[in-house]
Amino acid sequence: MTYCVGLQLERGLVFLSDTRTNAGVDNISTYPKMHTWEVPGERSLVLMTAGNLATTQAVVSLLDERNLAPDDRDPSLLTVPSMFQAARLIGNTLASVIKERTNAKGGTFSASMILGGQVAGSPPRLYLIYPEGNFIEAGDDTPFLQVGETKYGRPILVRAYQRDMTFEAAVKLLTVSFDSTMKANLSVGMPLDLSIYELDSLDHRPQIRIESDNEYYQSISSGWSSAIQSAFQSLPDYDLD
Amino acid sequence: MTYCVGLQLERGLVFLSDTRTNAGVDNISTYPKMHTWEVPGERSLVLMTAGNLATTQAVVSLLDERNLAPDDRDPSLLTVPSMFQAARLIGNTLASVIKERTNAKGGTFSASMILGGQVAGSPPRLYLIYPEGNFIEAGDDTPFLQVGETKYGRPILVRAYQRDMTFEAAVKLLTVSFDSTMKANLSVGMPLDLSIYELDSLDHRPQIRIESDNEYYQSISSGWSSAIQSAFQSLPDYDLD
Repeated sequence: MTYCVGLQLERGLVFLSDTRTNAGVDNISTYPKMHTWEVPGERSLVLMTAGNLATTQAVVSLLDERNLAPDDRDPSLLTVPSMFQAARLIGNTLASVIKERTNAKGGTFSASMILGGQVAGSPPRLYLIYPEGNFIEAGDDTPFLQVGETKYGRPILVRAYQRDMTFEAAVKLLTVSFDSTMKANLSVGMPLDLSIYELDSLDHRPQIRIESDNEYYQSISSGWSSAIQSAFQSLPDYDLD
Repeated sequence: MTYCVGLQLERGLVFLSDTRTNAGVDNISTYPKMHTWEVPGERSLVLMTAGNLATTQAVVSLLDERNLAPDDRDPSLLTVPSMFQAARLIGNTLASVIKERTNAKGGTFSASMILGGQVAGSPPRLYLIYPEGNFIEAGDDTPFLQVGETKYGRPILVRAYQRDMTFEAAVKLLTVSFDSTMKANLSVGMPLDLSIYELDSLDHRPQIRIESDNEYYQSISSGWSSAIQSAFQSLPDYDLD
């Protein structure tokens, strides 16, 4: 499994992904699931992937190859006119890679992806791309998108997300969400990859890798356990009489 | 879906189940998923069911029918000598009901169950029974068992459970766990059924139904949102510089 979250904020976008891949519990590896493309001052794109690793690597390689052949008539992520067209391109690539490998019984080579970023002239966009190649966009009512092992980490997102939160608070929120997930599910694991895109910067900040011995991560992981226990203590017990 | 949790405490057992069943989102109903049997002073059993409703109802009806034929040579829940034998009886009944209805492609009539209680002469036991009829027992390291939509409500159980907690605190813990689940998943719904078994009482307390307008439930639901937001605020933000 995998866990990736993209948050849409007033001030931009925040992405966090884990790096664990597994084919059985005795065959685990570390692979980045976050990929970025940019033309500084013109566009910045972040893609996070969940699902079959051969599929997601093939999709990213195909997208990269297109970027290297700018004279080709096929569109590339570096030239498509909008985030919507970028999502279409990735969706079509994903669907065709899956189709190529999936026999009639289907399903095992599936993957889904989160795409976020901005192309000059339009606001930032955040999409969830399905294995069938279609996609949905985050909006005011659903301002964050998750792929992979989404359930354990969802309650805190639902409760603590604020559209106007700072990037610093957003990273805290995602750290708590990931920590809850990793405490419950072995298929999601450290290190984490963090990417922050500031509104209208058209240039993403350097990607940050958060290792398991990261001081901030450790402080949140233990601090959240204590904080949640205090929160729990603060509520009234049930009255059985 | 469904959500049921059984907690093993020093002072006894606590069970909470939801009551929503659905066959598609436009076909939802309320059915109790908690069933109790007792011989006061000698045994007390609580069974919670998740999965295909026709299957779980058939299992409970078969168990009830056996209880009504005490002279039969077949074992019944009211006569088996131990909780282990009760779990075997239920497991075998469950597996045979599923087998009877499942064609070669299998799976759609599946169900799983949580059984807890005490038979005079042995300590209380808590089991999770699988559709195949086999089962696992809760223990010191895994003192609670969940069936159904288990993921959303698990992080709080992992963090706030204490073996020596009071029944009142345990009900609070389960209320928070169920509230987190119901906020995220429409297939788990109010009202809830609560059952408490006190160690060595051999007689369970009257089952309690918690409706959605229940004052305690409401106070926990809104109180937990605030408490978790305060807990979140209390942690340090990430430092981006």
